[in-house]
Amino acid sequence: MSVAAVRLAFLRSCRAMAGQFADVDAVMDWFAAKDRQRRFEVRRIPLAALCQWDYVADPLRLVHRSGRFFSIEGIAVETDFGSVPGWDQPIINQPEVGILGLLAREIDGVLHFLMQAKMEPGNVNILQLSPTVQATHSNYSRVHMGNAPRYLDYFTEPGRARVLLDQLQPEQGARFLRKRNRNMVVVVDEPVPPHEDFRWLTLGQIKALLARDNIVNMDARTVVSLIPLADPDEPPDYGMVNGITGFGLDVYLSFCRSDKERHSMDDIMAWLTAGKARHAMRVAPKPLDRLRGWIVTDNDIRHESGLYFSVIGVDVAAKTREATRWSQPLLHHQGQGLVGFLCQRHGGVLHFLARGSLEPGNRDGMEIGPTVACSEVALRSRRACPPALLEFFLDPGNFVVRYDAVQSEEGGRFHHFQNRYMVVELPPGRALELPDHYLWMTAGQLWRMARHGHVNIEARNLMACLGLLETLP
Amino acid sequence: MSVAAVRLAFLRSCRAMAGQFADVDAVMDWFAAKDRQRRFEVRRIPLAALCQWDYVADPLRLVHRSGRFFSIEGIAVETDFGSVPGWDQPIINQPEVGILGLLAREIDGVLHFLMQAKMEPGNVNILQLSPTVQATHSNYSRVHMGNAPRYLDYFTEPGRARVLLDQLQPEQGARFLRKRNRNMVVVVDEPVPPHEDFRWLTLGQIKALLARDNIVNMDARTVVSLIPLADPDEPPDYGMVNGITGFGLDVYLSFCRSDKERHSMDDIMAWLTAGKARHAMRVAPKPLDRLRGWIVTDNDIRHESGLYFSVIGVDVAAKTREATRWSQPLLHHQGQGLVGFLCQRHGGVLHFLARGSLEPGNRDGMEIGPTVACSEVALRSRRACPPALLEFFLDPGNFVVRYDAVQSEEGGRFHHFQNRYMVVELPPGRALELPDHYLWMTAGQLWRMARHGHVNIEARNLMACLGLLETLP
Repeated sequence: MSVAAVRLAFLRSCRAMAGQFADVDAVMDWFAAKDRQRRFEVRRIPLAALCQWDYVADPLRLVHRSGRFFSIEGIAVETDFGSVPGWDQPIINQPEVGILGLLAREIDGVLHFLMQAKMEPGNVNILQLSPTVQATHSNYSRVHMGNAPRYLDYFTEPGRARVLLDQLQPEQGARFLRKRNRNMVVVVDEPVPPHEDFRWLTLGQIKALLARDNIVNMDARTVVSLIPLADPDEPPDYGMVNGITGFGLDVYLSFCRSDKERHSMDDIMAWLTAGKARHAMRVAPKPLDRLRGWIVTDNDIRHESGLYFSVIGVDVAAKTREATRWSQPLLHHQGQGLVGFLCQRHGGVLHFLARGSLEPGNRDGMEIGPTVACSEVALRSRRACPPALLEFFLDPGNFVVRYDAVQSEEGGRFHHFQNRYMVVELPPGRALELPDHYLWMTAGQLWRMARHGHVNIEARNLMACLGLLETLP
Repeated sequence: MSVAAVRLAFLRSCRAMAGQFADVDAVMDWFAAKDRQRRFEVRRIPLAALCQWDYVADPLRLVHRSGRFFSIEGIAVETDFGSVPGWDQPIINQPEVGILGLLAREIDGVLHFLMQAKMEPGNVNILQLSPTVQATHSNYSRVHMGNAPRYLDYFTEPGRARVLLDQLQPEQGARFLRKRNRNMVVVVDEPVPPHEDFRWLTLGQIKALLARDNIVNMDARTVVSLIPLADPDEPPDYGMVNGITGFGLDVYLSFCRSDKERHSMDDIMAWLTAGKARHAMRVAPKPLDRLRGWIVTDNDIRHESGLYFSVIGVDVAAKTREATRWSQPLLHHQGQGLVGFLCQRHGGVLHFLARGSLEPGNRDGMEIGPTVACSEVALRSRRACPPALLEFFLDPGNFVVRYDAVQSEEGGRFHHFQNRYMVVELPPGRALELPDHYLWMTAGQLWRMARHGHVNIEARNLMACLGLLETLP
């Protein structure tokens, strides 16, 4: 399959609202049925009551007795970027590269993707659609010791499937210390053993579900964000988008090669390099019980202001056949955040306003983020100095809201961590006063930068939500 | 200046063998005159006699009393990559990002680059041509405190020049711990104050000098490697390469967009990601006096086998107006290394055989290296198990040697560290049995990967040497 053929197959799949499921409502019927069977009970418990999790010293941190999974550690942050020169915080340390993998197969001439109805203890609604595989490195390095996640071998065994993409992508730099995962899409020709929790969806169906709140999980969104709607090396193929109009067409054209980009790729690299060179963030380990502003108790770890997040314990009873039960810490989030892109047509081509983002967990300094990413948005918008450009999202006025849905962050690490994802379009020519570190990019340019791991997960997750539909379904 | 205009200006400059200097011989006359005036005397001294440099403990390492410049530290390496599962070695730690900058200006319609005749204590021939600026972070962060390198403000002060490229690029991962530099090219319209050590050269003149031994230094080579001979997004413009024939034309076409690439960019990213995920290298600090196989004395630090490199001290007397004098450690290399690319036409387009390279100083695991990179080549070729494919360079037989010159690595850190750089072309269709981690790429693909920092310095330095000339001058 040539690159052109793969790109075309992605685009066709994105246009297909019917596939193995007749339509999105049929997917939702199946999903609702799975949801009625769900067999997870999640109960909050004190951190001290967690089974197998202990505080260990030097520096004080919360770890699993096996040394596996992840740990909750403290860090002290100093930086010359942004308005706050320093702070302390807990952070998740999970120094291994997992696999987020989407298995693809052509069915009746349309590429389908194998999605899993998956329960995670931290999701507000427990059940969401995940990619085919979410595997930690311990999962996949001991694949032959049994207990490997279903379908994992398509991603790890050479020759089982053709690799369409395999990229290292960063996770939330404000919550994870230098965490990255391999994001993979692989394709098989032959049929795949079915399983009751897995179904084949078209890309168009996944995109339509992304317009709804809390159906498609974070791991699926990051993989989907890397599937381009067009080849940024090629001019538009109007025959292929016959019938697509309005904002859907604008998104497609923004993925395509054009000579209307406001900045070249060389300019974008130079902008990012200068940002990396200009600003530093020093991150030093610090014992959990010595973090300024944080209170550590047997019950939880929380900030004295009640803001940000807290570390809580949950007990999970999975009433599956295996009747497993476990307990684990999660990062609980009280209020909702906001992740937003401003977009605007320049020279007729849709551009997105990217912002340089520097967070303590970033592996390599500044990354490319969305226009706005703000936690606890209700509280922070009332403060003296709200994040720049936030007002365009809270009060869009005459501007057109192109996307607006609430999505959850990874439910295996975060408890009720939801962000409102928005795309707001400014009319052409409407001038903006931009603070430092903002740059307009096309969707194709964002995708090209993402391919090399330069785009953060908030920006990727929001780009994943953009499809070819003119309006929200 | 649009991207297309910049690319065209690069190509024109590469074709121009005449410019401010009438030809390359005229450059060499100026260089020889500078060389006759040279005012550096370099004398080996014991490490214990270095002024301001001390061994400090926990772990034992060699540092400058100011805490600035760099330090020589010990590391223990463990890996599942390659044939050696672990070793100890000294390494240079210089945790800051410097600037390697080339100032460009159009003169009589041709882009020229300002090169400096610069003395470095470690060069075999002391004087070589460097880029306009080689600045450490301490240089450029205190630019207003005086003593800033000449012309630095063109690279650091917004608005002084237009940035054509600005990229973070890794240095030698076998000798530097996670070291990177910003590689920059900036262009000015107005005249620049002249200085006796600086001259404007065309890209064609620089490429011609790269065919000679030890004229263009490592810092210049890495910046030049990032200047593309064509736009990888565009098909060839045969009008622009009228008169270019043979291997020079093949190199140009290999930079251009074509549909003959053996692997897509997605494939290349997937290959690199899989290599990063499959192989790890653990690097732990270790006191210099406890490194297995290394002998630390007041005189030097050396390996008991006499192989690899040693850490020596030098005393430098610069008889310039300021009559400065200093002493410093350098990494001394006894024998010559070899850095080589095999190339071959596939579907009529020249491809280069890249090899995944994992070295202890790499910041992010595997990088893209040349086909062969081997130190102490005379000794290692006689051993039982020489590096794969080395024989094609030591005994090319009927294969065509497209490039063959000896170049020096950075003379400010390395003493007499020379590599023989070679490009050898196999006839089309000649099959090769490839070990793991090799992949054929076009020059345009290597350049695209280099733009994002994935290509190591040995591969970049060799690509820099390729120009539009059919045969070596």
